[in-house]
Amino acid sequence: MTFRVTLGCDPGNSGAIAVIADGQPTSFIDIPTKPRKTSGFQVDCLDLAARIRGLMQMHPGAHFIAVVEEVNAMPSAGGADGEPRRRMGSSTSFKFGQSYGALQGVLGGLGVEIIDAFPASWKRHYGLKGQKKGGKKDDSRLLALEKFPGLAKSLARKKDSGRADALLIALWAQETEQVAA
Amino acid sequence: MTFRVTLGCDPGNSGAIAVIADGQPTSFIDIPTKPRKTSGFQVDCLDLAARIRGLMQMHPGAHFIAVVEEVNAMPSAGGADGEPRRRMGSSTSFKFGQSYGALQGVLGGLGVEIIDAFPASWKRHYGLKGQKKGGKKDDSRLLALEKFPGLAKSLARKKDSGRADALLIALWAQETEQVAA
Repeated sequence: MTFRVTLGCDPGNSGAIAVIADGQPTSFIDIPTKPRKTSGFQVDCLDLAARIRGLMQMHPGAHFIAVVEEVNAMPSAGGADGEPRRRMGSSTSFKFGQSYGALQGVLGGLGVEIIDAFPASWKRHYGLKGQKKGGKKDDSRLLALEKFPGLAKSLARKKDSGRADALLIALWAQETEQVAA
Repeated sequence: MTFRVTLGCDPGNSGAIAVIADGQPTSFIDIPTKPRKTSGFQVDCLDLAARIRGLMQMHPGAHFIAVVEEVNAMPSAGGADGEPRRRMGSSTSFKFGQSYGALQGVLGGLGVEIIDAFPASWKRHYGLKGQKKGGKKDDSRLLALEKFPGLAKSLARKKDSGRADALLIALWAQETEQVAA
């Protein structure tokens, strides 16, 4: 019997959820998407809900908690040289926000409480640098592989960095004993 | 016994849901929000889910369907005169997207299928003009009051325009027999 399932969540249409049952990483859910009628893709909320509901049925009676990276739009503010510093436009921000909200909403609809994980907090805990400070997107995947060689297959591809982030986010919450507000 | 509950949804942090049970408007849910740790407000997904779950308990066995206005970011593209035409920046777009996604996610988490309502479709059906074509935000509220004088109390304030939109969105789906894709 499982007592506690922690869902580490890396938001976004290419995001992922890492599932940790009583401290042991057991599986990953890549965020399912579907085409939007107008253009692009969006989170398939019914599909995502079905997958998490499936986990709940696998672990009946377990306490589920989600740890979700707190993300924001990156406004294209001008840098010191007057050039745009960052590159997330209005439409991209909307889609990223929608994807983030959909994840929060599905969890809420399933009654799962959410702990916010600020990037600075969980990355500092693992000695990972943000990309602005010279860190690389792949750093967290390499670290996760080091910590869990048994997960090599699930973390084999560079695009598995979302899974690795999700896994480290969940572990951070456990190791630092975060609780939902 | 209720056979069918239609939830007309106007997305956004000031949005609302109109509840129609077997063709009769019965109540409204104003989207509940809570402060974000960093700044501003976001949809309170657990609270919203609890309210919709409450409706499901009130109408056991009824088929629930949601009709959600399809919204987008409004990029601040330059107009013919070179001045910005619209005013939704990156950060506002992110928040609007998050709010939209949260609504979709909560519905998905509760297993409720969603019908998309394009603004042009439901507004045209009721002869309402978009704001860019000289329509006013309050037009839908005045129309809803005309159609349902019994709802005067729920639609008394100008800020109830979200409720009115939600109501007309649900009615549009019924009158035009929209079904989920």
